[in-house]
Amino acid sequence: MLVDLDVKEFVDRLAAGVPTPGGGSASALAGCLAASLGAMVCDLTLGKQKYESVRPEMERAREALSGLRKDLLALVDRDAEVYDEVARALKLPRETPEQKQARQEALGKASQFATEIPVKTAESCLAVLEQILIVAEKGNSNAVSDAGVAAHLAHTGLAGAALNVRINLPGIADRARSAQIEQRVERLESDARQLLAGTKETVARRMQG
Amino acid sequence: MLVDLDVKEFVDRLAAGVPTPGGGSASALAGCLAASLGAMVCDLTLGKQKYESVRPEMERAREALSGLRKDLLALVDRDAEVYDEVARALKLPRETPEQKQARQEALGKASQFATEIPVKTAESCLAVLEQILIVAEKGNSNAVSDAGVAAHLAHTGLAGAALNVRINLPGIADRARSAQIEQRVERLESDARQLLAGTKETVARRMQG
Repeated sequence: MLVDLDVKEFVDRLAAGVPTPGGGSASALAGCLAASLGAMVCDLTLGKQKYESVRPEMERAREALSGLRKDLLALVDRDAEVYDEVARALKLPRETPEQKQARQEALGKASQFATEIPVKTAESCLAVLEQILIVAEKGNSNAVSDAGVAAHLAHTGLAGAALNVRINLPGIADRARSAQIEQRVERLESDARQLLAGTKETVARRMQG
Repeated sequence: MLVDLDVKEFVDRLAAGVPTPGGGSASALAGCLAASLGAMVCDLTLGKQKYESVRPEMERAREALSGLRKDLLALVDRDAEVYDEVARALKLPRETPEQKQARQEALGKASQFATEIPVKTAESCLAVLEQILIVAEKGNSNAVSDAGVAAHLAHTGLAGAALNVRINLPGIADRARSAQIEQRVERLESDARQLLAGTKETVARRMQG
């Protein structure tokens, strides 16, 4: 498993001239780092007398972020798997009409999978951004810059996942289906932009005083 | 060392309710992931007949990104060290005037260090963004989405490092010095925004055709 590598080895593997791990795994990892940082801010808030009144929100946010962190960590490896499936399909023989059709079908299935996984990453990153906004607004102000970093990371995870959806869309033969996925991704991107802007504003305000 | 932890342990430590590793280390890691992905795209370009004409640029970019990757990996741990130094200074006794002055001096030194390290992270992330733009323009078009993910990650590393500079600025007593650092950070942010915008445009164009 990629996530069992140490950080140094992980970035070595990422830098190597092989396609996996690639941008899809890196995007899921960015989302996972965001969820982790958000959970840290919750923990640095809970148990502090000064923040007693926001305890229920912080507990809910910590629980949500903790689940999202696990989902996104799993997506780091899932993304590499789907890429390998696409690569396998591309290598299938295409000499006879039967082979061509079998290859086309394998490629269609792999491409669908290869869009579904980054869509999941993008959706999880949006859910992280929603929690981070709450954490930035109500969490420990000494750690508000960490909430800001988390928002940037989650936004990048989503933007990166969106690129990985789009690069696999041409492999999906059903045009209506691929248009639907494109619309879903655009909506996620627009929601993420708004949440990032709101969080940046909150973080800047709370850092000033 | 933090970078000797496996990825799963690293995110566990990040999520834990202790301040380090925090947003500063996560920002340096984002920059390191960006440099790694950029180097991957260079490798997936070099040796391909179709891209023979861009070999010198790709070799230069790969070398630059490889150095930046190492710098940013080291900054993951350096950032945690400087935070610990600030925390130690804050805990110094402040009962006598002598103690107060010693604490103030220790805090000033630690704060200066705590701004210098994230400024270095931000500068390295900007250098990554400069290389990524070249890689996105001239590298293997099959991996152009990876260059796009890398640009988002490097931008996030810089934006996150900027937040970490700013949260430590109030600890610097010399107002002229801290204004100078603020100006430097604003310039880095504005350069990064432009490079990200240019790279996103290039990536979108090359993904379409």
